[in-house]
Amino acid sequence: MSKPAKAEKAATLKPRLPRGLVDRGPAEIAATHRMLEKIRESFELYGFEAVETPFIEYTEALGKFLPDLDRPNEGVFSFQDDDESWLSLRYDLTAPLARYVAEHFDALPKPYRSYRAGYVFRNEKPGPGRFRQFMQFDADIVGAPTVAADAEICMMAADTLERVGIGRGDYVVKVNNRKVLDGVMEAIGLGGDDQAGRRLTVLRAIDKLDRLGADGVRLLLGPGRKDESGDFTKGAGLSDDAIERILRYVSFQAAPTEGGDRLAFWENFFGGWGEVVGSSETGRQGIAELHAIMKLCEAAGYGHDRVRADPSVVRGLEYYTGPVFEAELTFPVVNEDGQTVRFGSVAGGGRYDGLVGRFRSEPVPATGFSVGVSRLFSALQVVRSPIVSGHAAPGPVVVLVLDREETAAYQALVAALRQAGIRSELYLGSSGMKAQMKYADRRGSPCVVIQGSDERAKGEVQIKDLIEGAKAADAIASNAEWKAARPAQFSVPVDEMVARVREVLARHYGG
Amino acid sequence: MSKPAKAEKAATLKPRLPRGLVDRGPAEIAATHRMLEKIRESFELYGFEAVETPFIEYTEALGKFLPDLDRPNEGVFSFQDDDESWLSLRYDLTAPLARYVAEHFDALPKPYRSYRAGYVFRNEKPGPGRFRQFMQFDADIVGAPTVAADAEICMMAADTLERVGIGRGDYVVKVNNRKVLDGVMEAIGLGGDDQAGRRLTVLRAIDKLDRLGADGVRLLLGPGRKDESGDFTKGAGLSDDAIERILRYVSFQAAPTEGGDRLAFWENFFGGWGEVVGSSETGRQGIAELHAIMKLCEAAGYGHDRVRADPSVVRGLEYYTGPVFEAELTFPVVNEDGQTVRFGSVAGGGRYDGLVGRFRSEPVPATGFSVGVSRLFSALQVVRSPIVSGHAAPGPVVVLVLDREETAAYQALVAALRQAGIRSELYLGSSGMKAQMKYADRRGSPCVVIQGSDERAKGEVQIKDLIEGAKAADAIASNAEWKAARPAQFSVPVDEMVARVREVLARHYGG
Repeated sequence: MSKPAKAEKAATLKPRLPRGLVDRGPAEIAATHRMLEKIRESFELYGFEAVETPFIEYTEALGKFLPDLDRPNEGVFSFQDDDESWLSLRYDLTAPLARYVAEHFDALPKPYRSYRAGYVFRNEKPGPGRFRQFMQFDADIVGAPTVAADAEICMMAADTLERVGIGRGDYVVKVNNRKVLDGVMEAIGLGGDDQAGRRLTVLRAIDKLDRLGADGVRLLLGPGRKDESGDFTKGAGLSDDAIERILRYVSFQAAPTEGGDRLAFWENFFGGWGEVVGSSETGRQGIAELHAIMKLCEAAGYGHDRVRADPSVVRGLEYYTGPVFEAELTFPVVNEDGQTVRFGSVAGGGRYDGLVGRFRSEPVPATGFSVGVSRLFSALQVVRSPIVSGHAAPGPVVVLVLDREETAAYQALVAALRQAGIRSELYLGSSGMKAQMKYADRRGSPCVVIQGSDERAKGEVQIKDLIEGAKAADAIASNAEWKAARPAQFSVPVDEMVARVREVLARHYGG
Repeated sequence: MSKPAKAEKAATLKPRLPRGLVDRGPAEIAATHRMLEKIRESFELYGFEAVETPFIEYTEALGKFLPDLDRPNEGVFSFQDDDESWLSLRYDLTAPLARYVAEHFDALPKPYRSYRAGYVFRNEKPGPGRFRQFMQFDADIVGAPTVAADAEICMMAADTLERVGIGRGDYVVKVNNRKVLDGVMEAIGLGGDDQAGRRLTVLRAIDKLDRLGADGVRLLLGPGRKDESGDFTKGAGLSDDAIERILRYVSFQAAPTEGGDRLAFWENFFGGWGEVVGSSETGRQGIAELHAIMKLCEAAGYGHDRVRADPSVVRGLEYYTGPVFEAELTFPVVNEDGQTVRFGSVAGGGRYDGLVGRFRSEPVPATGFSVGVSRLFSALQVVRSPIVSGHAAPGPVVVLVLDREETAAYQALVAALRQAGIRSELYLGSSGMKAQMKYADRRGSPCVVIQGSDERAKGEVQIKDLIEGAKAADAIASNAEWKAARPAQFSVPVDEMVARVREVLARHYGG
């Protein structure tokens, strides 16, 4: 390629990101960092320890468990290695953990409690609030067959939300059990491998209860449903009897305001579920597990205002085998269509007893949950949590450059400030005094240091307090008066510069 | 696929990572986190602010600037998007920054000082200490044409190394200038586009000065060199005159022990360089820039024991246009061949005035540097920096489960400990008392809480101090005596449990 052609091409190169990917600035980074630290504290309190796996794994090791995908490899970013084997970017943090535990099985304490935060990638169509790179923060217990592990996860989810600033009453951790759902399916004749497709249609319908209500779900379970835009979703084609059984099942809702004897309440509550699953052994086992989880939570002081069984929780990922959880925020927000809705899910998880076992001859029980970091971050903005609404960090002190030949002298001033631990910088652009002041303003500088030839001759610098100056400018009406008073600007000997800058910082940000 | 076939396949699935990728455990994660925080503090002190870009970019936006690659796309993980456009995982943090700045040009303060830490990916052959996913921590100044910006970067590199625990005298920030190298090339008749290949051979030879010494470089500049294993590297085929000129150029080394008038020293030092570049205008400009950087550093108190010009610094990446830097650790280590060598480079960077300009009609000056996080981490282990050699965090208090039917009661004990902010957990495995004690040991638990039926009847728990117990076990010789004394194990009423556990923690870790 000849040079001019290259230059021409370069000029047309557009700076842009692929869709579904975003940049983040300092305020969001700092706030996210604070939020992640709070989540980490909560996980540490529960005895979990950190682990980190790489972003790339063998495609085969990750498996294919993403929901709602028809084409192979859809949803995952994949590429071939030199030896032709397929590699993928992780689509969640659970599949890599299963690989990690299987690989290091003998070296790990069991049960193994671990947490990890990191970006995951989905090669899906992005939309509002849906990204192709997003962060999850997971905690998992591997090697614990007991539902006490699931109960710990649910309680930790509640504690974690409160720790980041979601008030009690503004969230609920909903728990269901895949085994109960399987039992309901069996009871309506949808058991067995050949009915897997119809089961999925039914599960997706149940999953939409919140959004569509009972009438919408009834249509999806039966003949199908046309939405507002006219799009038709094919239904599961169930009999009226089957539909009524499912609607009865999802109608079992434990309202948070119910008081009284809680253990008796759950006894009665799950009695109703028992009728729905009929004689299904799987279903009855699932109900017993859920009941045990509720009793454990109540015993630990986590009432059904915080953790409660809910028949409509489904969870999309295909690897769940038992209890499934969803942490939902219940306060209202206005969605992109202008409707007021509940904020919705910010975390979820469940038991996946088969995932580690893919690599081993024995089954390995495991349960865990995953916080959707961006979703939770948005929620904290809605409730104005101090974690995300804190003030920006102070900008640097800027040493202006009035005579470019004296740069070394200005550099020495900056070095002295930094030696004293004061965040500061030399102005490195090529603009004049006015633009330099504008730059300092834009950086949020508390003050600037100025040395012209007069000050240099006297061995002094001028310090201009920009925060005080802005206040004074608001108060002083006349421009002439302003110029005469020169508020918030003063000369000091060079060897007092550090001390006087410190005074300015202490005045505005405290000692 | 039928079920049995699937199960058979699952049994053979091997848990493993693609080569060049690694997992990390809690101690390394915590130590790395501490190190990154120190680096961040250093960058913040210099007025830099955080920014984050995604892991995936348009391949075209990243460009192809990796060194030593012959095949297109080599070195980079790439894959096609739905619309056929090519995407890549970022191979460094500089190319994405250039895209970011170009995209948000008008909204950013200029000069724009930013930092970012994150993983980057290279699709290269991994080796000892070479990974396909590794972390970099970068700081860059965009929009500053002056070499005062390069000087700030060099001083910040020095400060950053000291802040993480590299002692003064154990590192040096070496500075060179691509323009000087270009000038030397011109002076030996290797200017112009048609000589690009030979120039690259010469640069690679210079880059090996540290490893091969002057004699090795002489062979690579001339007829070629056969290494110990018998492999022959083709030489640049330069004339004897040209070779001597280059060897004279790389012989200009400013030893850190030279004292006296430093400004006079640099005057004299760069005088020698001037002879080597002869009449090359580019070369003379490059020397003047380097000289200015040295003067700025000296003025700010960064003597040539910390920052100094070095003609052998080349830097592999192709986008550098001016000053280039390399932070080298000078203390000895034993390499994988058993030889004692200097630890070597842990950070590097330089000026890349053309990179942002690829997206714009005007050139945008920029300079920055990148810390190799894993390399620096290894170095801190060698010098036993407190940042990486700190003790592991205390393990959780473990509440043992003696009667499985009483799990709810045990769960309530754990909840009480956590309410008090004490890191604790319920034992969730299915093993007996002995294995549970072993588990607690393995987790580094300071103590366990035990409640058998006797204690439950009395409303008590036993607290067993594992740290004290281990000490006592060392001191007490007889097993019978041990059993009689039961040191470090005591019963307390349930409502005193939290206070007594706190006492144990305070005894071992301080109040």
